[in-house]
Amino acid sequence: MALLVKHMLGLEQVEREDIETILDTAASLQEISYRPVKKVPTLRGKTQVNLFFEPSTRTRTSFEIAGKRLSADVVNFTASASSLSKGETLADTARNLWAMRPDILVVRHSAAGAPHLLAKLLDTPIINAGDGAHEHPTQALLDMFTVREKKRKLSGLKVVIAGDIAHSRVARSNIYGFSKMGAEVWVVGPPTLIPPGIERMGARVSYRLEEAIPDADVIMMLRIQLERGAGSLFPSLREYAIRFGLNPARMRLCKPDVLVMHPGPINRGVEISPEVADGPYSVILDQVEAGVAVRMALLYLLCAGAEHEDTDQGRT
Amino acid sequence: MALLVKHMLGLEQVEREDIETILDTAASLQEISYRPVKKVPTLRGKTQVNLFFEPSTRTRTSFEIAGKRLSADVVNFTASASSLSKGETLADTARNLWAMRPDILVVRHSAAGAPHLLAKLLDTPIINAGDGAHEHPTQALLDMFTVREKKRKLSGLKVVIAGDIAHSRVARSNIYGFSKMGAEVWVVGPPTLIPPGIERMGARVSYRLEEAIPDADVIMMLRIQLERGAGSLFPSLREYAIRFGLNPARMRLCKPDVLVMHPGPINRGVEISPEVADGPYSVILDQVEAGVAVRMALLYLLCAGAEHEDTDQGRT
Amino acid sequence: MALLVKHMLGLEQVEREDIETILDTAASLQEISYRPVKKVPTLRGKTQVNLFFEPSTRTRTSFEIAGKRLSADVVNFTASASSLSKGETLADTARNLWAMRPDILVVRHSAAGAPHLLAKLLDTPIINAGDGAHEHPTQALLDMFTVREKKRKLSGLKVVIAGDIAHSRVARSNIYGFSKMGAEVWVVGPPTLIPPGIERMGARVSYRLEEAIPDADVIMMLRIQLERGAGSLFPSLREYAIRFGLNPARMRLCKPDVLVMHPGPINRGVEISPEVADGPYSVILDQVEAGVAVRMALLYLLCAGAEHEDTDQGRT
Repeated sequence: MALLVKHMLGLEQVEREDIETILDTAASLQEISYRPVKKVPTLRGKTQVNLFFEPSTRTRTSFEIAGKRLSADVVNFTASASSLSKGETLADTARNLWAMRPDILVVRHSAAGAPHLLAKLLDTPIINAGDGAHEHPTQALLDMFTVREKKRKLSGLKVVIAGDIAHSRVARSNIYGFSKMGAEVWVVGPPTLIPPGIERMGARVSYRLEEAIPDADVIMMLRIQLERGAGSLFPSLREYAIRFGLNPARMRLCKPDVLVMHPGPINRGVEISPEVADGPYSVILDQVEAGVAVRMALLYLLCAGAEHEDTDQGRT
Repeated sequence: MALLVKHMLGLEQVEREDIETILDTAASLQEISYRPVKKVPTLRGKTQVNLFFEPSTRTRTSFEIAGKRLSADVVNFTASASSLSKGETLADTARNLWAMRPDILVVRHSAAGAPHLLAKLLDTPIINAGDGAHEHPTQALLDMFTVREKKRKLSGLKVVIAGDIAHSRVARSNIYGFSKMGAEVWVVGPPTLIPPGIERMGARVSYRLEEAIPDADVIMMLRIQLERGAGSLFPSLREYAIRFGLNPARMRLCKPDVLVMHPGPINRGVEISPEVADGPYSVILDQVEAGVAVRMALLYLLCAGAEHEDTDQGRT
Repeated sequence: MALLVKHMLGLEQVEREDIETILDTAASLQEISYRPVKKVPTLRGKTQVNLFFEPSTRTRTSFEIAGKRLSADVVNFTASASSLSKGETLADTARNLWAMRPDILVVRHSAAGAPHLLAKLLDTPIINAGDGAHEHPTQALLDMFTVREKKRKLSGLKVVIAGDIAHSRVARSNIYGFSKMGAEVWVVGPPTLIPPGIERMGARVSYRLEEAIPDADVIMMLRIQLERGAGSLFPSLREYAIRFGLNPARMRLCKPDVLVMHPGPINRGVEISPEVADGPYSVILDQVEAGVAVRMALLYLLCAGAEHEDTDQGRT
């Protein structure tokens, strides 16, 4: 079992077949996290480096827990304690790490394309843990995993992604992913937060939640990323909450088996009300939980792929 | 062997029986740290998350070493590299971590009651590693462990805690702990640093070291927490050192087998003189050493308790 | 197999015999990093604490990977998240860590002599990972390892170290190390960056690259440490690059089998041009790779030495 891709840089270039392999593998690995002994020796003696150039809580921790449950040696590298403050380039930092013979690199960077650059330079498998406003493929994979677990399918579902589409790598990866799996993806938000040409990615556009959600199977609310300047693109948080927040009144328009998702961290009372975030339709914590399983699957599949390739070339 | 409590939030609500179980378990685990191979498989496959919202050296490191010597997978989460800078609430952060299925959470937070809030929200065992000026129960347990190792008992001892009582979670936990174990606890300091009503916690009050220390079995000097504003509550550090510092002259008033303790970090020359801190009565490094054993005991007992509970409820 | 020294504080006091033992051990351990399972149980149950008071990427990560590949439990302690912000002294911090029974301490500090101070206070083996402008012995050891792997010898080679000699602990350690191994060491740079009396360390001095490099076997370019104030000691970066940068024109003066080295991080276009850094003579990434092997060797040898000593004294 191996993937067609050598790296997980984004879902734009990934085949449906690979997505299915990842989700199936995650499903088989998830039970490890429920055992009393949450650990298998699969990646024993592998070195996983988490190379994070942006602050992160859940993603870094999720990758670290995923690696440790597979018995990998996990090394965290964060930019604040790094040579980057001494002016070293990203490429030099990565080449240096590569020379220490890691088996896999997990990379988060504020620049779109940073993981792709590293994949060109290095022969170590790379997982993109978020690059600028470009892609966040493991988030989309865990979102698809969560929906598939609940709905037993992805094809034919209507998925509404609402909020700050323009700044969201989560939105981009989910549009690619769900579309490839046969779902119909809608994006909803104020015109200033919907990038022009988004339809070419396969999404339908609406500017009113009320239009999009009544027949939705999945509603994914995105975080208003105030720290990235989204706040200047609409009049006020209060007005945003009134027009685009998911609240109990809007939930009454929805199908009774709709799933409410959010990649976190949540701005409670802005894009989602506390009643909805903590309510019966919410699968937000299932998403977090799925994150560990999906990342275990990717670490396993990409490390296994790298070994397979080594053997093919007689290099082992 | 399990505790009556499911969490270790503070010593106020803990029974004497539990304290004895913890100290006995620590005594049996301490020798692991003297072996050439300092590691037992007890917590293999358990995920321990250290969730620190305040900077810490010894406490975080002590918990990390304790967990690793029991073979737990230890994940450090510190606030500076976290979603909290994106405005996420403590409860949401904790719920997210919980969804990654940790087996135990070690929490330090500047807000009194933060670990108690998490214990209400989550079914994961929680250890309070210090919450505001409220409690620091593992410090008090390691203090009691240290005294018990040296004196072979706690009951009947006179324990003097001196310094900045008002700001000290260490003082509060030690007053509860030593009192429950039958020791007599005195607190000493300038009136501005002794909170009103402290007698109701079981402590006797004195405003002069000379009055309290001559028949003391244990003198615990607290750090003047300049970083928390204690400096505005007395005229000067120099005057504080003269009136309330433990120095060789005052040591001559003490019993020949008195123990001098300090939770660290020390302000040398303020609350304690270097001669005393490094002198023959000092057990300050024994305290640090005991910290690893006591934390190993708590990690073990609370994880074992959680498993036991799972079995009872048929959830394993 | 054990070293004559108990600590690795610097190469000034280390015998040639110890250097050979370390390089031989590193050579035998290096292949572990090429295995599919990069892990041996040598240091299982040992606690390695990385005590870093200065930011570092490659050195801290290299030590962490080295320790983990030997199965040590590695604990990272960095100053920013520490009691040092509460005014604790270096000695107290170290004594506290010592009380947690680490088996080895890796120390980086901005003050020259800090690891030596700790070695006097503690009976735990200490590795100096860089102290001020004094020594950085593991860098010199990995440099010697790299050269020895390529040239099959060290004795009789001409080694040119060029750049900011005055601020460079790397230069100092390499002058001691290569000289002891029988190499001839030259230092080159503008007079303001060459400390007076450097000849007494065994180095020859030149102020012109063109004079030193034509018959060099090794050219080691040092980083201009702008963050340490080197920039005020010469007119401009551009002029420095013109007079002392290693570029393709200067490479044409060199022997065809010369090795170009750099301890990193590189200022591309200042002390070394990108064509040379990435060119055929460059062994810069071999140096990084050697770092893991050399550090594995030191961790192993010093831990083994400490155990041997314990046995001798009947303390195990």
